[in-house]
Amino acid sequence: MEQRQFKKRGVDYPIVDGAPTLPGYYYHSPDIYREEVEKIFYKFWLLACREEEIPEPGDYKLIQVADESIIVVRDKSNTIRALFNVCSHRGTQLCAEPKGHFNSKTIQCPYHAWTYALDGRLIAAPLMQEGHGFEKSKCSLPQAHVHNWEGFIFINLDESPVPFEVQMEALIGKFADWKISELRIARHIRYELNCNWKLILQNYQECYHCPGVHPLLSKLTPVDSAQHDVSKGAVIGGFMDLPRKGGSMTMTGEAAAPPICNVHGDDLQRVYYYSVFPNMLLTPHPDFVMYHHIIPLEPGKIINDCYWLFRPEVINDPSAQGGINSAVEFWDLTNRQDWQVCEQMQIGTKSRRFKHGYYSGREDILYQLDREVLKALGHPDPQAQD
Amino acid sequence: MEQRQFKKRGVDYPIVDGAPTLPGYYYHSPDIYREEVEKIFYKFWLLACREEEIPEPGDYKLIQVADESIIVVRDKSNTIRALFNVCSHRGTQLCAEPKGHFNSKTIQCPYHAWTYALDGRLIAAPLMQEGHGFEKSKCSLPQAHVHNWEGFIFINLDESPVPFEVQMEALIGKFADWKISELRIARHIRYELNCNWKLILQNYQECYHCPGVHPLLSKLTPVDSAQHDVSKGAVIGGFMDLPRKGGSMTMTGEAAAPPICNVHGDDLQRVYYYSVFPNMLLTPHPDFVMYHHIIPLEPGKIINDCYWLFRPEVINDPSAQGGINSAVEFWDLTNRQDWQVCEQMQIGTKSRRFKHGYYSGREDILYQLDREVLKALGHPDPQAQD
Amino acid sequence: MEQRQFKKRGVDYPIVDGAPTLPGYYYHSPDIYREEVEKIFYKFWLLACREEEIPEPGDYKLIQVADESIIVVRDKSNTIRALFNVCSHRGTQLCAEPKGHFNSKTIQCPYHAWTYALDGRLIAAPLMQEGHGFEKSKCSLPQAHVHNWEGFIFINLDESPVPFEVQMEALIGKFADWKISELRIARHIRYELNCNWKLILQNYQECYHCPGVHPLLSKLTPVDSAQHDVSKGAVIGGFMDLPRKGGSMTMTGEAAAPPICNVHGDDLQRVYYYSVFPNMLLTPHPDFVMYHHIIPLEPGKIINDCYWLFRPEVINDPSAQGGINSAVEFWDLTNRQDWQVCEQMQIGTKSRRFKHGYYSGREDILYQLDREVLKALGHPDPQAQD
Repeated sequence: MEQRQFKKRGVDYPIVDGAPTLPGYYYHSPDIYREEVEKIFYKFWLLACREEEIPEPGDYKLIQVADESIIVVRDKSNTIRALFNVCSHRGTQLCAEPKGHFNSKTIQCPYHAWTYALDGRLIAAPLMQEGHGFEKSKCSLPQAHVHNWEGFIFINLDESPVPFEVQMEALIGKFADWKISELRIARHIRYELNCNWKLILQNYQECYHCPGVHPLLSKLTPVDSAQHDVSKGAVIGGFMDLPRKGGSMTMTGEAAAPPICNVHGDDLQRVYYYSVFPNMLLTPHPDFVMYHHIIPLEPGKIINDCYWLFRPEVINDPSAQGGINSAVEFWDLTNRQDWQVCEQMQIGTKSRRFKHGYYSGREDILYQLDREVLKALGHPDPQAQD
Repeated sequence: MEQRQFKKRGVDYPIVDGAPTLPGYYYHSPDIYREEVEKIFYKFWLLACREEEIPEPGDYKLIQVADESIIVVRDKSNTIRALFNVCSHRGTQLCAEPKGHFNSKTIQCPYHAWTYALDGRLIAAPLMQEGHGFEKSKCSLPQAHVHNWEGFIFINLDESPVPFEVQMEALIGKFADWKISELRIARHIRYELNCNWKLILQNYQECYHCPGVHPLLSKLTPVDSAQHDVSKGAVIGGFMDLPRKGGSMTMTGEAAAPPICNVHGDDLQRVYYYSVFPNMLLTPHPDFVMYHHIIPLEPGKIINDCYWLFRPEVINDPSAQGGINSAVEFWDLTNRQDWQVCEQMQIGTKSRRFKHGYYSGREDILYQLDREVLKALGHPDPQAQD
Repeated sequence: MEQRQFKKRGVDYPIVDGAPTLPGYYYHSPDIYREEVEKIFYKFWLLACREEEIPEPGDYKLIQVADESIIVVRDKSNTIRALFNVCSHRGTQLCAEPKGHFNSKTIQCPYHAWTYALDGRLIAAPLMQEGHGFEKSKCSLPQAHVHNWEGFIFINLDESPVPFEVQMEALIGKFADWKISELRIARHIRYELNCNWKLILQNYQECYHCPGVHPLLSKLTPVDSAQHDVSKGAVIGGFMDLPRKGGSMTMTGEAAAPPICNVHGDDLQRVYYYSVFPNMLLTPHPDFVMYHHIIPLEPGKIINDCYWLFRPEVINDPSAQGGINSAVEFWDLTNRQDWQVCEQMQIGTKSRRFKHGYYSGREDILYQLDREVLKALGHPDPQAQD
């Protein structure tokens, strides 16, 4: 296919109107899904949780990554660990409660009482003698790698992961003005959706659908104001304008809170939309930060946990709750509008007559996302043969 | 196996007592099911709906065919179209409501507002320019073929289908006296059944089970009166006697309504049972017509939509409702008796010890149906090796 | 791996601390499960029911073995038969009620009324003539083999099964003092569990988990008192001490009833734990006998039917009900404690990081059980490659 560059507000479109989408089976095939789990979710850095969710030594949160359950726990020395939730003895799930605190500062298997330190070391295996096939030191809990970026805990299940800074290059230094590590979770909504995980990222990365799907959003932010900062790699994103002075993405269009920390200049009139491949969507506003945590369960089934971060003093200010509510309500409404079309796209792409579709130039980032997926899977381009 | 001809009321039995049935896995194997979808449901003419269900331009009904959703719609020029319910842009299901009316006389995708005429042509793709990979004319909705027989809309998903008249040869001209196109739906009952689609056709094509399963039916129509008009091909059928003058298949045995149109002579004392392979059962009585629409969902799961057609003046006559109710009640009772044995057959055929069964001569039509299935699949005869 | 013998109360441990467990996929893989059904559940002698459950000719109970339904029925001559629940005509399940009585002393198919004697012979196939492919004598119901041991009905679905006495060698003569055939079912509890069938056997064969999981049990019976009578083959088992005179496994620790029949000497202070591979756990106490009947449904889904047998005079004595209740309550509590860890082990072993675990010497019997499974499947030892 002929490739040209098209101009849009000074930014080059890397694709033409008509570039092919992925074939429909990329959203349905159990084989493709298994490959994605293996080559993407078990290889890439993934959002796990916020550091604030486990503030004290012994605090933990379980993180599901496809079939794996990971205990993200703060150990005695305040190091955050990501332990596989599987006893080395016979494979029992160590911990079933999704969130909590290990009072004993150890993790004890409920079955035979093998006991682990919070750093994963096996410290007690009742009645077992070392020496003839059993070595305590070989029975530590397997660990995923951990990286803290701005209070977001990322994990990587690969034994030799790519450096965080390589995968997340475009994120480093970005949004420093927000001091995101100082923000706190004000609200959380869990969505259970019947669609492929990629459809959520694709949906997030274009506003071509906004006029029809999001009438209220389209009033607050001009749909043709979208510009891209980064359009290749695992982190891709850009921003849209907030023309109203002191405005933000809320039910009223007024800011939910004063600008965050050092946010200034143009950023006071912008909403950023960064998709952090493969499981995070990060949306900094002047006054708050929203993020999505995507958890794939099956080819056509995901959990999407949506969080709203605000300054602690806003969260603790009774008179500020109306603003928070307005932001949450706006995005909950907008999210539900998105989920409906994503779920309808999931159904439609099952058709055997849908070989592939045609991106508009405004969906160039989706074309790049598809390339990122194909590269990770090591698949040749399933290009259209029209 | 030795093949002989056996006489039955002047009609030759094409098979002997003891002819082998299909092996049990033909009702359970996901592979066989996928093959059936591909080679039967995506190749043969299928019942879709009645023309009367979409009387005005813009009226539509969604028809499910395995994984495919088809929009059967009457376009502006009154032509009935069968459009794949999948947007050419990115594969979104265009329409989710099972039945309705396109007010704008266009079909607009809920995601990015691509808009199609009711004849399937793409008429608007917002903000997209033609020329570099995108051609509106190549983005029309795929269409299934459509044929109207006596007010029944049939569709064919194959790109080069066999002519309707070839598949349905035995149907052409048959039942002209009923003027079925003038009849209207008086009632509809949807059944969700846990059995393979073929078991419903097989159940319909023999009355060997009637004495035990249908005591009331067996009083109204002698079970040994079954004769076959057509016993090979996609359309196979015959009739049974209604010995009672002015009788029909109702709770009381009395006709539900006066004879339909030109029905006369022997047909006043007969019920016809025609199975229109693969998804329709057609049962003309002197006074009404019943039909089943079979929708396979999984190897062991189907929907069976059952409809009762009457003359419009009967439907509109308040004093005639008792008769309609009696016909519907009779067949609902009879249907439920059938569903129970079909579901028990589905369970039993799962046994690894059930290699195949033995048809009686009275089930000769089932043996032919099996041949039709095997022919469509291109399978050799999985004949018994006793 | 180095293999040594370790002493434990005069009994040799056949394995060292650290012997490898089965890899996790043995509890999850649909392929392994299918192989187990084929090579274990369709080959080995299996517990079906108690003879007392079908006391009169015509009484029957349906027994599910993976996808097979077996009618265990007492025929006219008082012989117990195990008939496949599948009509020879077209494969219909003959009987859907889980338990009952054939009033006519025949089994009639609900579909076309083919009729079988209680010994499985086809005695009537309405309207069918023999001679050209159909022979009544070839249409008898397939039968599984039947063996009665102490009032327990065992069945074997293999056409040429291993002799019962070979598979069950370690059981023959054992527990004669209990006269188990004279006992009767006092209670039954059905558990539906989300775990692999093997986890239940493994859980039963070690008390390494008792201190943490069963605080009450551990008070009644010293967890280090476990000794093995038999530690190889399909039947493996041993006993634990009941130090309290006149004690048993009940909520109070007091016997639920007087000692059974001829139970005497050491056996008055012991609970025996015999696992009868693959689907029975047999637990004789001085005063009652408990047994489990395991029915696998999917790799991670089973039914476990638990029964309590007492002397008939105890069951019929109103003043003895408190004792029975205490025994049932104790074991129901203990069972539920076990199910929870078994279900957590099922979840944990799904992790791709769980290659295999490490048995303690006290779990030697589990290592033997794994060998029995591998031998039955014809699999090489998936030994650890550390």
